[in-house]
Amino acid sequence: MEFKFAERMEYLKASEIREILKVTERPEVISFAGGLPAPELFPVEEIKEVNRIVLEEEGTQALQYTTTEGYLPLREWIARRMNTRLRTNLASDNILLTHGSQQALDLSGKVFLDKGDVVLCESPTYLAAISAFRAYGCKFFEVPTDDEGMIPEELERILEKTEKVKIIYVIPDFQNPTGRTWSLERRERLVKAAIKHQVVVIEDNPYGELRFEGEALPSVKYFDPVGCVICLGTFSKTFCPGYRIGWVAGDQRAIQKYVLVKQGADLQCNTIAQREIAKYLELYQIDEHIAKIREVYRRRRDLTVKTMEDEFPEGVTFTRPQGGLFAWVELPAHINAREVLEKSLERNVAFVPGGSFFPNGGKENTFRINFSNMPEERIVIGLKCLAEVLREFI
Amino acid sequence: MEFKFAERMEYLKASEIREILKVTERPEVISFAGGLPAPELFPVEEIKEVNRIVLEEEGTQALQYTTTEGYLPLREWIARRMNTRLRTNLASDNILLTHGSQQALDLSGKVFLDKGDVVLCESPTYLAAISAFRAYGCKFFEVPTDDEGMIPEELERILEKTEKVKIIYVIPDFQNPTGRTWSLERRERLVKAAIKHQVVVIEDNPYGELRFEGEALPSVKYFDPVGCVICLGTFSKTFCPGYRIGWVAGDQRAIQKYVLVKQGADLQCNTIAQREIAKYLELYQIDEHIAKIREVYRRRRDLTVKTMEDEFPEGVTFTRPQGGLFAWVELPAHINAREVLEKSLERNVAFVPGGSFFPNGGKENTFRINFSNMPEERIVIGLKCLAEVLREFI
Repeated sequence: MEFKFAERMEYLKASEIREILKVTERPEVISFAGGLPAPELFPVEEIKEVNRIVLEEEGTQALQYTTTEGYLPLREWIARRMNTRLRTNLASDNILLTHGSQQALDLSGKVFLDKGDVVLCESPTYLAAISAFRAYGCKFFEVPTDDEGMIPEELERILEKTEKVKIIYVIPDFQNPTGRTWSLERRERLVKAAIKHQVVVIEDNPYGELRFEGEALPSVKYFDPVGCVICLGTFSKTFCPGYRIGWVAGDQRAIQKYVLVKQGADLQCNTIAQREIAKYLELYQIDEHIAKIREVYRRRRDLTVKTMEDEFPEGVTFTRPQGGLFAWVELPAHINAREVLEKSLERNVAFVPGGSFFPNGGKENTFRINFSNMPEERIVIGLKCLAEVLREFI
Repeated sequence: MEFKFAERMEYLKASEIREILKVTERPEVISFAGGLPAPELFPVEEIKEVNRIVLEEEGTQALQYTTTEGYLPLREWIARRMNTRLRTNLASDNILLTHGSQQALDLSGKVFLDKGDVVLCESPTYLAAISAFRAYGCKFFEVPTDDEGMIPEELERILEKTEKVKIIYVIPDFQNPTGRTWSLERRERLVKAAIKHQVVVIEDNPYGELRFEGEALPSVKYFDPVGCVICLGTFSKTFCPGYRIGWVAGDQRAIQKYVLVKQGADLQCNTIAQREIAKYLELYQIDEHIAKIREVYRRRRDLTVKTMEDEFPEGVTFTRPQGGLFAWVELPAHINAREVLEKSLERNVAFVPGGSFFPNGGKENTFRINFSNMPEERIVIGLKCLAEVLREFI
């Protein structure tokens, strides 16, 4: 049998991260590779309890089909939460639950992208967003980005001269992969540019709740009076990723289209997962739980930054994120991080080379460090070991 | 804001079923509309127990990210089950877990279909498969179908003269919406035709385990020596739909492509759902559970057929399915089932008009009856009421 696959299968490639993650399943490997939350913080006992209650009180409904939009009390909670924390103005009708925020990315591509359309993104940007959008045949234009976000003049220049821009994709809080956070001014200018050119902004915010210091900023959506900003969120980093519950929030005209494509994509999210999360939010204080996560990650971030400062050789620079899960390392231009990874894997230390975070390639002298998943002592051992490898290259 | 949606949003429409289902949420409505399993048969107590054990024994893993392919013990179980029941020859590497078999349909579209490609399907066919495939811009050619499946001469004629046929989509066991089952001979001829024309067959089999009488037939896949048949399966009808765990099984070269597109679509299935189902299968006898479901549905099917025979006016014909969830009703050509539905909803009886099961329209004088979801007394009351409405039209 000669399979005739769709054209898109020629340019879709296996995620480098997922391949590296297979290596990191060996317990001896110290992994800075994945974006995995710290599993020891999962509220296992509380989840046992909410599962029992949900099955007791609403067992048959919790196991049956449900609506595509998702469980109403959970959508109401999300709207309230976003309105309080991100200063948005949303109701449950503005929310569709998705199978993790990765599905929200995929549905965004399906709702907005035709072959040949253009997505503007930060440079670098989240690698799994690249694969989600790429499946719809789009091109990526990378907008030059500094510590405060996309550079507005560059963004505006690109918008002026580029046809068929359909989406501006951004992660303004503790970005993946760089850990950077957009300034308030840049958020506002982004929305103004988007409105001027009538382009949708996808504001992806999986890490915003994990701020270790400094003041929380209003979302990009806060500056949007017309409905051009669509927000993505998730319980993966504040609760548990295994449940695969995320959401897309925005103007109802757009959300209705998302509901339509979700119907065809998988009908609905896992029913019991939706109800268990809602029950957890009703019975427990998620803020206390998030505070715990934040504190652990803050210590790990501190240690990561300090160890990199102490141990990494001169010529290596890195970000000092105020929250989230990731820091970003830049090596002297002649060093290829994929070669560094090879050597470092020999010593059982893993990370993700930066090249694949650039949709059009380049910057092979960069890599991403995840600091959320390893206990403190292993962070130090791993980074010291990585520093030795780096010294061999420099 | 003027949204510029993708072209596909012009031809994707809300599922008629999902709209009708909203009406049927009112408890006074007797619904033959959805494809909902009987919730009173869900093994709620057993699920409580497996949830407790999974969280006790493997809590942190069960709540963490996992592989795209899915939980290995569950994929192994599925391969064994299919090999025994459907006479296939599959290993765990041939299986990808999906978010319900609806996602397997969507991923099939993504893996195989370019805009303008052709999908051959039974006439009528499963309406949510139409929406899943349509999102990839394909055209549908309906193959004339009788009580034994697609008519081989018609299928071969269409394959001869049609370009860009990428998929032949079939539901050989207790088809949705007709309840019909393909004969052995037709299964074999389908595969031969597919091989001759090097076209992939998607064999969708959500209801195969729910046979009330007669001998189980080997799958279409059984006749496939080259890997052209890709099978879809699900736990939604034999266990619980709320978990959203289905699968796609087939030649590894194809499954690898499905894994790739699933990565971009949603990374992975719900981790704890996968492990709970695997644990249930380890601790309990699913065959006994399925036997219970089968017995209840068989009685409901009997009652449905008998009541239709006794009550429906002359000129109305219907199928007598040997299993599954659905029967199919054909009215005299001048009667429009959508108009019948309007009248019948006034009396709180719902069903799905047949028109939307024909991707290219037509046959508005048909409708689908689901007999799995309503208790016996309500089946009788509902069908008698529907018979009265039908008499008004004839």
